[in-house]
Amino acid sequence: MSLREEALHMHRVSKGKLETVSKVPVRDAKDLSLAYSPGVAEPCKEIYDKPETVYDYTMKGNMVAIVSDGTAVLGLGNIGPEAALPVMEGKAVLFKSFAGVDAFPICLATTDIDKIVETVKLLEPTFGGVNLEDIAAPNCFEIEERLKRETNIPIFHDDQHGTAIVTVAGLVNALKIVGKKVNEIKVVANGAGAAGIAIIKLLYSFGVRDIIMCDTKGAIYEGRPNGMNTIKDEVAKFTNRENLKGSLEDVIKGADVFIGVSVAGALTKEMVESMNSDSIIFAMANPVPEIMPEVAKAAGAKVIGTGRSDFPNQVNNVLAFPGIFRGALDVRATHINEAMKVAAVEAIASLIDENELNADYVIPGPFDSRVAPEVAAAVARAAMDTGVARIKVDPEEIKEKTSRLATIGKSE
Amino acid sequence: MSLREEALHMHRVSKGKLETVSKVPVRDAKDLSLAYSPGVAEPCKEIYDKPETVYDYTMKGNMVAIVSDGTAVLGLGNIGPEAALPVMEGKAVLFKSFAGVDAFPICLATTDIDKIVETVKLLEPTFGGVNLEDIAAPNCFEIEERLKRETNIPIFHDDQHGTAIVTVAGLVNALKIVGKKVNEIKVVANGAGAAGIAIIKLLYSFGVRDIIMCDTKGAIYEGRPNGMNTIKDEVAKFTNRENLKGSLEDVIKGADVFIGVSVAGALTKEMVESMNSDSIIFAMANPVPEIMPEVAKAAGAKVIGTGRSDFPNQVNNVLAFPGIFRGALDVRATHINEAMKVAAVEAIASLIDENELNADYVIPGPFDSRVAPEVAAAVARAAMDTGVARIKVDPEEIKEKTSRLATIGKSE
Repeated sequence: MSLREEALHMHRVSKGKLETVSKVPVRDAKDLSLAYSPGVAEPCKEIYDKPETVYDYTMKGNMVAIVSDGTAVLGLGNIGPEAALPVMEGKAVLFKSFAGVDAFPICLATTDIDKIVETVKLLEPTFGGVNLEDIAAPNCFEIEERLKRETNIPIFHDDQHGTAIVTVAGLVNALKIVGKKVNEIKVVANGAGAAGIAIIKLLYSFGVRDIIMCDTKGAIYEGRPNGMNTIKDEVAKFTNRENLKGSLEDVIKGADVFIGVSVAGALTKEMVESMNSDSIIFAMANPVPEIMPEVAKAAGAKVIGTGRSDFPNQVNNVLAFPGIFRGALDVRATHINEAMKVAAVEAIASLIDENELNADYVIPGPFDSRVAPEVAAAVARAAMDTGVARIKVDPEEIKEKTSRLATIGKSE
Repeated sequence: MSLREEALHMHRVSKGKLETVSKVPVRDAKDLSLAYSPGVAEPCKEIYDKPETVYDYTMKGNMVAIVSDGTAVLGLGNIGPEAALPVMEGKAVLFKSFAGVDAFPICLATTDIDKIVETVKLLEPTFGGVNLEDIAAPNCFEIEERLKRETNIPIFHDDQHGTAIVTVAGLVNALKIVGKKVNEIKVVANGAGAAGIAIIKLLYSFGVRDIIMCDTKGAIYEGRPNGMNTIKDEVAKFTNRENLKGSLEDVIKGADVFIGVSVAGALTKEMVESMNSDSIIFAMANPVPEIMPEVAKAAGAKVIGTGRSDFPNQVNNVLAFPGIFRGALDVRATHINEAMKVAAVEAIASLIDENELNADYVIPGPFDSRVAPEVAAAVARAAMDTGVARIKVDPEEIKEKTSRLATIGKSE
């Protein structure tokens, strides 16, 4: 069977991938008198009296909503909420198998920003956190910003921040190999979608100051007359200090790092040759990267990462989101802030020892079972340190729990 | 431990009762390439091309939203969406263990009718059906009616119709015992909340024509000057043909059947004595019924049902909703219509053979494993017969499947 046939067969036989299962025994009248009437009235009354106990007596504290409007699904684009459902179920499966986080798809029949924000706010009692998924730019930015302000649970747009965290973790390690420092490098990012914007913002948090972002109209600069929007205006403010104009080909000259979240073939051999020596390339267009690794290497690149599992250094969000939510949920964080993202980057990067580190191994593999526990513990610690945790928990305990709950890589 | 302590302990140890679990193996890269990227794109594309295949490739066809605003939870009243969550999780557990239906709590942070309707409509892509739960009257009526008109998935307010179906099933059997016919009896219902209204409507569907409904202001009649609303106006139109005025005590004289969905003690010994001979009493106030069974029996009642598990003839919704949704989902019904409810009543009533039938056994026990499969098959058949089924399925197959998926009463 082809992958296509096998995937269709698997989804059809199981009728999707996610089910809801009782965590408590339900065999007889006694069991039901505890799980349902009359016993269930007791936790209800407790929560009514002490609202914070909803985290003690219900699923809320371990339950993440995976919210999508189906406008930017995989490489398929705006396919709508029903067609997006298989991806969201798959995401829920990843949450559970990598970090024991329960997650539930919420595919919404609207693309209206106000309606999406309102709906998620109305769902807040049920969920401990919200993972926004496959919502097209620029709507995704406003939706995330508003939900962060208007709710008290962690809101995380994985297409932005998951990708950003793993990319920056890879870059942190790549810089060790080439012996360059964050405050010395010039970074050019191609593609001003959700992931691209999040990556350059996180690079800025890491101290990178020389950044140029390109879109299909070339370099973004303050006052560019065409193809701008609110987000690009913001980008122009903290990037491109010299206000360079021109195409990617023009501005990439002398750059140390290329970050591609754009389209196949966007980066040519000649462009790489025009970069600084020992250049670092993250070419994450899917399924065909901006430049093939062997071409980039031949043109002088030292470290190359892609989105693909068949090349070294795969930028795979699964390294980030399960551990991030595990850590955030376990300390009942109200937000996922910049410090928690930075902590996740450092946790991922630090898993590769100096003596293991090499140009083909700057990012841990997606099935490295150390990753989610380290990320969870680091994120929880950062949440507690920055005052967004509602409770204190020993990070070592969270690490142990994450290892225990993860099923990936374990035999059945 | 007291029941209170035991219930709190159980909920705390398990942190609620519901989890999300993968139905497919997720151990290694191959598994993930099917369940997630890149293989997951294939069902996405199929659904995009043929929207109805969302039922083949996703969880939608087996997934029910349990929607509540927390305004009428158990006997606790308006305790809000967070405090309602334990009940909705419990309900999800019942759906799964009685009929293999996946269900997920959606506790909404609003009591606004428009917002609840809008939110459920936006959630429609994700769910195969909606069970409205513990939403106070009269809002529950408008919410259900609007959702039935404005969505294409089954909408069912269990507090109304679940209770009505089981009560009427009990009444159908009770009438066999006393040898009376539906078109000859006089029924007095006390309590004009969600359940009471649904019961008298379903009685009307069964051919009962002499019905009087009372609320706290006494008999409801056309043009009553106080305590009326849209729903009670509608009730007045098809009940109380003689336009009787007065209290429950006044109008119950000569009645054959009392239906209580009101408060403890609402029915006195004297009132029962004033009823017709061989009267039938469903006294469903919880936890203390309108009249205690032994008092009613001593006053001349022949058959007595309550909401309690420690008396005979327990009216327990769990006899209805799991099988109803199982049947509706399996034929991809667009609605749960009156014919499907009638079919459920008849399926439940017919499970008690004539030679088993007696005054203490007019309703099957809640753990009778024959009930959900029979109800599912009957409801599916009625859906196909009345043109609300999207696909045809052999009802015997549905019966077998329901038996197989149910876990209740089976050893682990």
